[in-house]
Amino acid sequence: MTHYQASLRDIHFALFELLDYEQHCNAVTHIPLEPELVQTFFNEAARFAVEQVAPLNAVGDQQGCQLRDGMVTTPDGFKAAYEQFCASGWPTLTRTPAYGGQGLPQSLGVVINEIIGTPNWAWGMYAGLSQGAMHTIEVHGTDQQKQQYLPPLISGQWTGTMCLTEAHCGSDLGLLRTKAEPQADGTYRITGNKIFISSGDHDMADNIVHIVLARLPDAPSGTRGISLFIVPKILIDDESHLREPNKVLCTALEHKMGIHGNATCELSFEGATGFLLGELNKGLAHMFTFMNMARIGTALQGLAHAELGYQHARTYARERLQMRSLSGVKNPDAMADPIIVHPDVRRMLLTQKALVEGVRMLIYYTSLYADKPQVEGAQDMLGLLTPIAKAFCTEVGFESANLALQCFGGHGYIRDWGLEQNLRDCRIASLYEGTTGIQALDLLGRKVLGSGGAILQPLLQEIEHFCRTYESDAALSAHVAQLTTLNQEWKDLTQTIAERSAHNLDEIGAASVDYLMYSGYLVVGYLWLRAHQVALQRIAKGTTEAQFYRAKIMTADFYYARILPRSKTLAATIRSGADNVMAMASEDF
Amino acid sequence: MTHYQASLRDIHFALFELLDYEQHCNAVTHIPLEPELVQTFFNEAARFAVEQVAPLNAVGDQQGCQLRDGMVTTPDGFKAAYEQFCASGWPTLTRTPAYGGQGLPQSLGVVINEIIGTPNWAWGMYAGLSQGAMHTIEVHGTDQQKQQYLPPLISGQWTGTMCLTEAHCGSDLGLLRTKAEPQADGTYRITGNKIFISSGDHDMADNIVHIVLARLPDAPSGTRGISLFIVPKILIDDESHLREPNKVLCTALEHKMGIHGNATCELSFEGATGFLLGELNKGLAHMFTFMNMARIGTALQGLAHAELGYQHARTYARERLQMRSLSGVKNPDAMADPIIVHPDVRRMLLTQKALVEGVRMLIYYTSLYADKPQVEGAQDMLGLLTPIAKAFCTEVGFESANLALQCFGGHGYIRDWGLEQNLRDCRIASLYEGTTGIQALDLLGRKVLGSGGAILQPLLQEIEHFCRTYESDAALSAHVAQLTTLNQEWKDLTQTIAERSAHNLDEIGAASVDYLMYSGYLVVGYLWLRAHQVALQRIAKGTTEAQFYRAKIMTADFYYARILPRSKTLAATIRSGADNVMAMASEDF
Repeated sequence: MTHYQASLRDIHFALFELLDYEQHCNAVTHIPLEPELVQTFFNEAARFAVEQVAPLNAVGDQQGCQLRDGMVTTPDGFKAAYEQFCASGWPTLTRTPAYGGQGLPQSLGVVINEIIGTPNWAWGMYAGLSQGAMHTIEVHGTDQQKQQYLPPLISGQWTGTMCLTEAHCGSDLGLLRTKAEPQADGTYRITGNKIFISSGDHDMADNIVHIVLARLPDAPSGTRGISLFIVPKILIDDESHLREPNKVLCTALEHKMGIHGNATCELSFEGATGFLLGELNKGLAHMFTFMNMARIGTALQGLAHAELGYQHARTYARERLQMRSLSGVKNPDAMADPIIVHPDVRRMLLTQKALVEGVRMLIYYTSLYADKPQVEGAQDMLGLLTPIAKAFCTEVGFESANLALQCFGGHGYIRDWGLEQNLRDCRIASLYEGTTGIQALDLLGRKVLGSGGAILQPLLQEIEHFCRTYESDAALSAHVAQLTTLNQEWKDLTQTIAERSAHNLDEIGAASVDYLMYSGYLVVGYLWLRAHQVALQRIAKGTTEAQFYRAKIMTADFYYARILPRSKTLAATIRSGADNVMAMASEDF
Repeated sequence: MTHYQASLRDIHFALFELLDYEQHCNAVTHIPLEPELVQTFFNEAARFAVEQVAPLNAVGDQQGCQLRDGMVTTPDGFKAAYEQFCASGWPTLTRTPAYGGQGLPQSLGVVINEIIGTPNWAWGMYAGLSQGAMHTIEVHGTDQQKQQYLPPLISGQWTGTMCLTEAHCGSDLGLLRTKAEPQADGTYRITGNKIFISSGDHDMADNIVHIVLARLPDAPSGTRGISLFIVPKILIDDESHLREPNKVLCTALEHKMGIHGNATCELSFEGATGFLLGELNKGLAHMFTFMNMARIGTALQGLAHAELGYQHARTYARERLQMRSLSGVKNPDAMADPIIVHPDVRRMLLTQKALVEGVRMLIYYTSLYADKPQVEGAQDMLGLLTPIAKAFCTEVGFESANLALQCFGGHGYIRDWGLEQNLRDCRIASLYEGTTGIQALDLLGRKVLGSGGAILQPLLQEIEHFCRTYESDAALSAHVAQLTTLNQEWKDLTQTIAERSAHNLDEIGAASVDYLMYSGYLVVGYLWLRAHQVALQRIAKGTTEAQFYRAKIMTADFYYARILPRSKTLAATIRSGADNVMAMASEDF
């Protein structure tokens, strides 16, 4: 098996060379963040990931989690690695200084999560969900709640979860039934069953802080009657000391396709004590604080599996000898050539490379907007890019992980190589935190059409501006022309759907996923063109890394030649309208 | 969980209404095969599949096969179902009458394999590979070999395998090392290790007949020095009575992503006794008799998982209540509408339906040519269509099974629903029996360009003829125009690749997979148009099944609106040429 290495060079390129992260940090934080310091964080995270996290990936899959006598145990080594992780202070990086955090930008946390989570996503999820729980308390908690819950969460001594789904409602949270009955002491009595709770119970932390959606007895029906609660696994006193167990039971672990190392729990709240978080009946809106962060985290998961698969596939393709190159023997000293000489293997590898590096740029580009909520337009840009990043990165991440497996031929299907686990682990990413279909409705219905298209304008203009700047640059002009056309087409497609949906709202759903994917290919295309331009510039200036920059340019060329043309099909299917999906009667399927 | 039902109505449509199977049978066999008799076979197969085979699918996945003390045991119930299968005479259908077969057309066996294999492919593979072994002996065996081996294989008392792959060679069989040393008695001493042998050892039959590729000590190197051998697990006498065990050991079972119910073995031949099958050094050519049949069988596997997933998904989509339709409440008596009202769920279901029914037509259309090897042009047509069917049906079968899982949201990821097993089981199909890349080289390099394009002519002309016949039919003309353009483009793309490859053979590999997929979408598009025409005709004549035929037309419309436009992207990527995949140095990936 291949040993995971963090892609530190490419991370540096995307952050510092493409997105000018140095200047970004100066603008968004007063903490001095020299590039060298940031690089030190990344190097240390990479060392930890390689030494402590990667070796637990296969064992996590094969052992899974166990529920015995109401207690969940994680696979061998998970707890020890988590203790190391906390001892090094990793959970504190981006959290509030007043409660033990270091106050670094969210985007930095995203990169750290990528580096540490890539070799073992199931392990990384325990700490990942905790970050969302902390962030939700930071934004919506009272001072007392922050005082009580944040310090042990930030140190990593406790972890957090997000409790939304019930057996009968996933996408449609308005249907949820978990009850919250007000008590005389100001607390709430929480009763109900939640399913699919990632990291819902385990043996790695002293306490687990569940962030739970529930409904008051007299609350309005639907999504307007949902409130948010803090429900700790173990009740605490004002000084955060553990008191007695709360009435929250893990009643089952799900048997899943993958991410076996993460405990996906059914939780039964049996009159558990809960504490209102934020305002009554604003629970769903508050939970979006958590979910939007989790969506970027899940976008990262798409990248992680694509990256891990790609690292394995390119190593295998260099080492596996099979058949001679059609254009002449390349490896005369052996019986066959390495399969990396074969054009179709290269096509699969380059597809992975273009997607891995492309979604990395997209996720970083998106996460920079999370660092500056106060800057005008940043929230809108984040709102626009988040569903694209979540759905696009997980969909093409799965495609990429699948191609990695394909590069191994039959060996890819065998457990020992790790490719099949990688694909199984990846498959969840386009389902949880809102399926691809849900992201697409959020993007097209709620955000793009909901704003009358206004939310698109800044990005359309940014791309247009970039294209105008480089349209007469001989090395870039062909790609610029292609991107300009697609940017205009994006506007036209939006307009077409807007007009049709004025008469028939099903036009939105019928176009939504293809529209989201179109948007993803376009935005990543824009970022690849910027990468191309930066690489040209570095070569022109003179560099000892000309080979690296030339590979960037070749990958951009590949993206424009072989990936971006997917927009042709998507434009055609979007334009085909809703009738071809709505005509058939339900019973005729 | 949904209960599997064989798609008997659609099978009947594809065979009898679309492909005029009645007339076909009259032409290819002297055995009277009235449609009613054929339908009786299908009904009985469906009953057996539903009652005996389907219930073993989940248990097969969860128990898997076990190797203990050199003996392989299959999951609970597998052996009993296999005995029932043999008792009903299913293995005999298409085999030679002189040795106990019924001599029915190959195509009939394909449909029976589909019906019985769909609910449990891992189980179906035991009998499926046997058919390939029998066919290879029928074609290449001596009279004595046929006399000795065929009767117990045809009765199902014994099963067969195909032993090609070794650890260091899969796609590149020229590298194989298994030795066959001639003995004084005319037998051969076989020594070597084979991996990935499906159904390689098990407890369901009295004997296993391995069909093994090996190399004589003085044989030419590469593929020209490979011979084929019969190597029984247990040696037999002239009357086919079992004598003593041969020196063939199962040394390990592979841990695979799926098809756990099928024993995928490492076999060690330790001086085993083998019998030459066919001519010396013609082994690879002979093995293609087996492989071509296995490739159509594997195309069926793509259909099987697509069909099984689709059956689950459409039932779930009708029952699962989640959110209201954007275009107005559809289910006012409940809290939410069934998800089948949502356009994106319909898009996913219709994609599955169009692909399932489309690949069924493609596989049947292909298999008819296997029934008439003596008819002029039939072998070429079979040679052209087999790699398309194998690769296209397994690739879109995986896509379809994946969409079925997606329709379940998070529940699709949980074992209990069966969707994740279906996807895992499906994943092998584009790897074994020649990967998609290998099929694509066979199609484009060996067959299309190898014949100077001549092999394409009959199909191009058939499509052209069909289009001309219906170009002024108002109901069909839009689709006819679309298909005519694509048919012409197919020719142009072939010509373009031919010209480029004259200068650079890597142009073939760089275009190959996209060319194969383009071909698949086009041929299935042709068959959908024929289905559309047949459905119109039936409605015009008057029918009690107008609803069925209208659904066919709507699905054809969907295929033309939402699936066939994929050709736009493929044409663009094919035209982009080899430079974008060949430019990068191996070390820069």
